[in-house]
Amino acid sequence: MANSIDSLSGAIMERLFVELEASARHVHLTEADALALFGHKLTRKRDLSQPGQYLCEERVTVVGPKGSLSRVAVLGPERPESQVEISLTDARVLGVEVSVRLSGDIRDTPGIRLWGDRGEVTLARGLVAAKRHIHMTPRAAQLQGVKHGDLVRLQCLTARPLIFEDVAVRVSDKFATYAHLDFDEANACGFRPGDLGRIVHG
Amino acid sequence: MANSIDSLSGAIMERLFVELEASARHVHLTEADALALFGHKLTRKRDLSQPGQYLCEERVTVVGPKGSLSRVAVLGPERPESQVEISLTDARVLGVEVSVRLSGDIRDTPGIRLWGDRGEVTLARGLVAAKRHIHMTPRAAQLQGVKHGDLVRLQCLTARPLIFEDVAVRVSDKFATYAHLDFDEANACGFRPGDLGRIVHG
Repeated sequence: MANSIDSLSGAIMERLFVELEASARHVHLTEADALALFGHKLTRKRDLSQPGQYLCEERVTVVGPKGSLSRVAVLGPERPESQVEISLTDARVLGVEVSVRLSGDIRDTPGIRLWGDRGEVTLARGLVAAKRHIHMTPRAAQLQGVKHGDLVRLQCLTARPLIFEDVAVRVSDKFATYAHLDFDEANACGFRPGDLGRIVHG
Repeated sequence: MANSIDSLSGAIMERLFVELEASARHVHLTEADALALFGHKLTRKRDLSQPGQYLCEERVTVVGPKGSLSRVAVLGPERPESQVEISLTDARVLGVEVSVRLSGDIRDTPGIRLWGDRGEVTLARGLVAAKRHIHMTPRAAQLQGVKHGDLVRLQCLTARPLIFEDVAVRVSDKFATYAHLDFDEANACGFRPGDLGRIVHG
C-alpha cells in the first residue's frame, strides 16, 4: 500500500487520498492574551500545512487542577477568542473533563489557566478536545464527492489500520487538503508522517 | 444506541456485541522477577474480567532512557516470562521504540528496567505495545461466526465512533468475552466503561 505522497502524482492524490497529520496539543490566543502572557505579539517560527497558519516561537504551560502540561505549542495568527486544544490523555493529566469539539465551537466549554514567560491568563472558556476533521480544497472535495459539513468515514492506511467514523469535512479555498488527528488517534492508528487516508463512502 | 450490558439480556449480548475494556499499562512477572523486585510472590488485590487473572497489590516503576512511568500495575498470576505492555504514548515518555504485539509474542522485542520496592530487574526483552484483541468464549465465537486467529473489524459504539481493523480474535474456554483496547485506542474512540463493540463482517 502506498504510504507516501512522493510516490503518487498530485492528481491521483487529490482524487483518492487525504494525507494524515497528527496535531499535538496547542493553543490559539487573542492578541490581548498574547500580550498578557509574553509582553508582545506572537512571533512566527515556521509555517504549518494550512495556508496562513504558523507555529510560534512562544510556548505556554497549561495548568489544571491535578497537573500541568509544559511547553505547549502556540499557533498563530491571533484569533478573536483564545482556545486550548488537548487530547483526552492530556485531560486526564490536567484533571479536567473536556468535550470533543470542532475548532471554534467553544460554547459551554471549561476554562483553564495559562502561564507564559511574562504573565498568566485564566480563560473563562475554550478548553476542548479537537474533533477529528478533514480540511479540503473545494476541488478535492468535489473530486471525492463530499461537501462542507459532511460526516464521513476515514480509513487510515497506517500500521494499525482503522476507520474513523463521524469525521467532519471542512471545505474552504483557504485550506490545504489534510486530515487532522490528535495524538491519541494518531497512536491508536500507528500513524507515521506521510501516511494516507481514504474517505470511505457508504 | 445501547451502551450498557445492563439493558440487554446475556443471550443477545453474546450473539451481537462484545463489551469493550481499556487495559492500562501493565506488567506480567516471573516468580523470580517478583521476588527480586518485592522480596515475595505477588499478592492478589482484585480479580480482572478474564478468569484467573488479577490485579496485584504490588506496583513497579518502568524506567526508560528518557523518562519513567511510576506505579505501573502488576497483573497476576506469575508467568513463564516477564512482559511489559505499554501504549505508544507511554513509549514516547520512556524514549523507546516498541512494536505492536499480541501478549506473549515477545521475540526480538526490546528490554527495559523495572524498579520495585525491594530491588530492580533489567529485562532482556519483553517490552511491547499490546495489539488490540478480542477474548471470546468458544460459544460467543461460534455465535458470532469467528474463530481463534481471525482478524476482524471491531466497530466501537462509543462517543467517538470508529472501526478498528485487524483486530485479533482469541478463543478459549478460559476466557470471558471482552475486547481489549489500550489507553490510546480507548481515548481515540471516547471509551466509557460499559461501552459495546460489534464485530463487522465483510
